[in-house]
Amino acid sequence: MILQNPALYTDLYELTMAQGYFLSERHEQPANFDYFFRSLPFDGGYVVFAGLGDLLESIQNFRFQPDELDYLRSQGFKEEFLTYLKDFEFRGTIYSVKEGEIVFPNEPILRVEGTVLETQILETLVLNTLNFSSLIATKASRIKLAVGKHSVVDFGLRRAQGLGGLQASKSAIIGGFQGTSNVLAGKLDDIPVNGTMAHSWIQSFDDELTAFRTYAEHYPDASILLVDTYSTLKQGVPNAIKVAKELEEKGHKLIGIRLDSGDLAYFARKSREMLDDAGLDYVKIAASNQLDEYLIKSLLDQGAPIDLFGVGTKLVTAYDDPALDGVYKLSSINGKPTLKISENEEKVTLPDAKKLIRYFNPDGSFYSDGVALDNEENPDSIYHPYISHRSAVVSKLKCEELLHKVIDKGEINISIPTVQESAKYAQQRLSKLNNEHKRFDNPHVYKVGLSKKLRDLKIELIQKA
Amino acid sequence: MILQNPALYTDLYELTMAQGYFLSERHEQPANFDYFFRSLPFDGGYVVFAGLGDLLESIQNFRFQPDELDYLRSQGFKEEFLTYLKDFEFRGTIYSVKEGEIVFPNEPILRVEGTVLETQILETLVLNTLNFSSLIATKASRIKLAVGKHSVVDFGLRRAQGLGGLQASKSAIIGGFQGTSNVLAGKLDDIPVNGTMAHSWIQSFDDELTAFRTYAEHYPDASILLVDTYSTLKQGVPNAIKVAKELEEKGHKLIGIRLDSGDLAYFARKSREMLDDAGLDYVKIAASNQLDEYLIKSLLDQGAPIDLFGVGTKLVTAYDDPALDGVYKLSSINGKPTLKISENEEKVTLPDAKKLIRYFNPDGSFYSDGVALDNEENPDSIYHPYISHRSAVVSKLKCEELLHKVIDKGEINISIPTVQESAKYAQQRLSKLNNEHKRFDNPHVYKVGLSKKLRDLKIELIQKA
Repeated sequence: MILQNPALYTDLYELTMAQGYFLSERHEQPANFDYFFRSLPFDGGYVVFAGLGDLLESIQNFRFQPDELDYLRSQGFKEEFLTYLKDFEFRGTIYSVKEGEIVFPNEPILRVEGTVLETQILETLVLNTLNFSSLIATKASRIKLAVGKHSVVDFGLRRAQGLGGLQASKSAIIGGFQGTSNVLAGKLDDIPVNGTMAHSWIQSFDDELTAFRTYAEHYPDASILLVDTYSTLKQGVPNAIKVAKELEEKGHKLIGIRLDSGDLAYFARKSREMLDDAGLDYVKIAASNQLDEYLIKSLLDQGAPIDLFGVGTKLVTAYDDPALDGVYKLSSINGKPTLKISENEEKVTLPDAKKLIRYFNPDGSFYSDGVALDNEENPDSIYHPYISHRSAVVSKLKCEELLHKVIDKGEINISIPTVQESAKYAQQRLSKLNNEHKRFDNPHVYKVGLSKKLRDLKIELIQKA
Repeated sequence: MILQNPALYTDLYELTMAQGYFLSERHEQPANFDYFFRSLPFDGGYVVFAGLGDLLESIQNFRFQPDELDYLRSQGFKEEFLTYLKDFEFRGTIYSVKEGEIVFPNEPILRVEGTVLETQILETLVLNTLNFSSLIATKASRIKLAVGKHSVVDFGLRRAQGLGGLQASKSAIIGGFQGTSNVLAGKLDDIPVNGTMAHSWIQSFDDELTAFRTYAEHYPDASILLVDTYSTLKQGVPNAIKVAKELEEKGHKLIGIRLDSGDLAYFARKSREMLDDAGLDYVKIAASNQLDEYLIKSLLDQGAPIDLFGVGTKLVTAYDDPALDGVYKLSSINGKPTLKISENEEKVTLPDAKKLIRYFNPDGSFYSDGVALDNEENPDSIYHPYISHRSAVVSKLKCEELLHKVIDKGEINISIPTVQESAKYAQQRLSKLNNEHKRFDNPHVYKVGLSKKLRDLKIELIQKA
């Protein structure tokens, strides 16, 4: 996380409400908030949860420094409230699923428990951090599914949404990417960094062969030559072959060539033939240019012999669905459960502090998830959220509780996983999600049910309102 | 700009190419790069250029610090190159259009001149900064066009692409927004901050009326009450009216109510009637919920009496077109003009250092733009980039050169405009762009022509290649 201090990285109303709670002496009422999203991005079947590490770090650094208090003073905040903020720290408790977990709509993914002031004041930070990181980790995992055994790296920084590029590169790794071109993300999060060369390198020489030769001279074991500056098949590939042979004579090996325009399937096939005919079957073919999971799947379905994919814009901006609709909703206040009514049944929130349970099929794959009240026994059956006759018996299934205490009364309670650990966990969990939930077209809906007690409490509160 | 040091905020290949230039002693060759984009976002007719202030600040801070050099060392960069980087500063010259300028595809918006190493090494920073800021300023200006005389503020931070939210809020102001909910953006860039209240505020009280009353007590002259938590017309608006009347008795005025769900046109009309009937014609109606320029235009076309629009996700992510396709291309090296060939005629770049000229109609509106070689006289006619028989005589038109020297041999040469100054300039310039280029559906294409000398040079270089 690049923000030194996230306290003002928020919507103004979090602070005006906080002051309102404080001035009316209601700020210490106990409260519970849930983070959840309502719909799946990319018309997909799941979300890879990410951003937890960044969020925990931000909460740890969440302090109002003197110049931030001065700014709030200039905006009309009251002196007694600023005095309170001066010593403010988050002292509440947070439960969360693991970074890299596979999650579904309307599940309480993260639960914040504490005073109403301290839980409310984190809203924007929670949403901004988790929505975007989870969105990109999910997009990356879809691209990785398309890529299969081949390699895929993030080349997106130039088209990223500003500084969001840093979080995108990190989330891409969690979703299954092997590396990034983003050097600062590499440094901050210990991610492998990769790169090839730009057309400008080649144009800056009198001819392409000299450009390739010079690069290979300085990077004899790390060159991927960009072959489409003039003519891919007439010049680029033949020049790359020459240089590969010269490298061989000196005991080195060309890593690969990169295709960045034209029909990638055709050029990859032709380039592969030319390389193989020259005895260079070890030279890899990298491809880039507006790739996403659909285009990569199509290329591989056509048998395009591409070994490494560079994916940029479509990944780092989640181009076809650039926002996850995560929300942060109050579920209890002062010990009383609450919910947000809506004319749209799907938008009614779930009351009270809850737990999230995953049920497994006998083969170890995910069966479905259940949401129950935090203080009840794990239920025997789970029920459709609002269609009354749908339910499933789960009492005989192996299950796992997914929410873990990550902050305990203000103290971080876990060792924050590294990016690589979260990536590994995401891949493990994805392997337990059946394929019908992972396909790109009309994925099968994964079931998330409620315990009877939770469903009844919800109905009772709706009827009361 | 929140990044303390942008030197590693780049794609790895910028650094490997830089090392390659350095090791082969080619790094001091003079070079020119152009920043331009190829297609207009949102199927629109123009782009509002933004991000220049951030870019200049980043270039000023562009230094390789010891721990960054250590990181590069760990990635295999060579000691002699790291020694060079230790003292590296950008010493080149940059020409740019003003922040807030209205620009079009294939125009050299920003030109970087210097050694090939120092011009190449800025590529990713230039693209990441200018692409996103210009994208959002453009989206904001479209929304502002729809909003007309009403007010519009940015509520997007919670769904923004991570830290990109900071740049989005700033760019929204340049595009014509009045304020933002983003407190840190407000502090960093001296932007007005705004906000209302969340549903959780109301839910945290036993009843809505007490929630409204308590808020109004602490913000007697700054309350906008959110009226849709339970029932907008049966409870929310009547309670807001009660509180407005109580405020009147104490000599204060309720600012407004906010609608955040349901049919905004219907609820706004009904709420307006109820407020007016209660003698509260000064109480404004604010609306939010997935708004964009099309929805706002539709609401106002239906006569919805909405005074203030809060726009979030669709603005800050540029939801319907979340990346500007800006590129950074070499146009001359070692005094020799160069271009990038492509099988797609529209993708062939323009060679050599260039100037950008805007021509005006007699009424002061923009007529068209011309691109010419930097060292030629302003041309009498401009020509279609590749359809040979299309041209226009411009010798009698008033004109303006749009590129200004913003960095002179490494030193910033202008006073960086404030956000408000850039916003004002953008509005002035937009007022000179005829409406047919600003409409949302099939806008008329604004003409950008080439001088004969530039067109001939381009053809000559293509034929040579």
